[in-house]
Amino acid sequence: MKPGSGPADQSPAGSAGEAGKKAVDITPLATVPPGDADASGVVSPGPESSPELIEVTDITWESTVEKGKVPVAVMFYSPTCAFCHQMEPYFREFARTLKGSVLFARLNILTSTWTPERYGVRSTPTFKFFCDGKPVQEIVGAVYPAILKRIIDDVLVHGKECAKNSTAIDYEITGYG
Amino acid sequence: MKPGSGPADQSPAGSAGEAGKKAVDITPLATVPPGDADASGVVSPGPESSPELIEVTDITWESTVEKGKVPVAVMFYSPTCAFCHQMEPYFREFARTLKGSVLFARLNILTSTWTPERYGVRSTPTFKFFCDGKPVQEIVGAVYPAILKRIIDDVLVHGKECAKNSTAIDYEITGYG
Repeated sequence: MKPGSGPADQSPAGSAGEAGKKAVDITPLATVPPGDADASGVVSPGPESSPELIEVTDITWESTVEKGKVPVAVMFYSPTCAFCHQMEPYFREFARTLKGSVLFARLNILTSTWTPERYGVRSTPTFKFFCDGKPVQEIVGAVYPAILKRIIDDVLVHGKECAKNSTAIDYEITGYG
Repeated sequence: MKPGSGPADQSPAGSAGEAGKKAVDITPLATVPPGDADASGVVSPGPESSPELIEVTDITWESTVEKGKVPVAVMFYSPTCAFCHQMEPYFREFARTLKGSVLFARLNILTSTWTPERYGVRSTPTFKFFCDGKPVQEIVGAVYPAILKRIIDDVLVHGKECAKNSTAIDYEITGYG
């Protein structure tokens, strides 16, 4: 898989498809325009916030994600992470497609450090999915968009059960607070 | 996809397949005997350690998981969590099937509290997958074993790329230590 030059010029999925076995026949990633690369040449993973992909921070995390009414898909990213640039257009595309049923958000781990630490995010991009405020699924890295999409679909179908069919850990007893 | 015989005779996956897309009519998990309930009536999610499913702790975590040579699947569990009892037989069955290619481990979050906190584990069971010592995927709760199995398969095929195609976060700069 190639990190690519532009945000997603060379599709990881492309080579994967050829590799056979796995059958990740997603739309060639190159056809998805990098959501928000601007003319100034500044490579940005997108605008700060947009209707389909909102920017969350340590401050807005609780109200947006932990008290969210719909499932939330969060991309933990860093502006300097090439793999994040690669993945963002797909994430943004899924956000457009699923607007209304899943809230798509991203969090800059350089400016909001508390939340990623609290959730054990160790690399970027980390895609984390929440139902009823609880993390239910996660995948890390520049993955095949088809896999990311499948996880999002899983969360839509099974996420609420996952949240319900698990026992919350009370970290207060360990002093985690 | 069938988790196989053994503890997983009634495969939720089986019915899931038939149910098509929805896949929610799983065999009530209550019918699955807790893998290793002993005659004394002590309900235990299994023996402390077995060849196919080893017990890890805060102490052995680093050497076993973070420095592991093969992908590692970890089930964070609590002995008092019913959903963990539900899932353990399937997890153990996958461990038997994939012995050698994936290291299966479990960690008791009541006796080893540091690791789950560090990795942001908020509920049990949490299944977390590591490649090259890095977390690459996660799913939480008493999920359909077929979904768990698919994730394990994904990790086997794509896990190393996921680990490679992500940027490690240096928490030292944030004082996380």
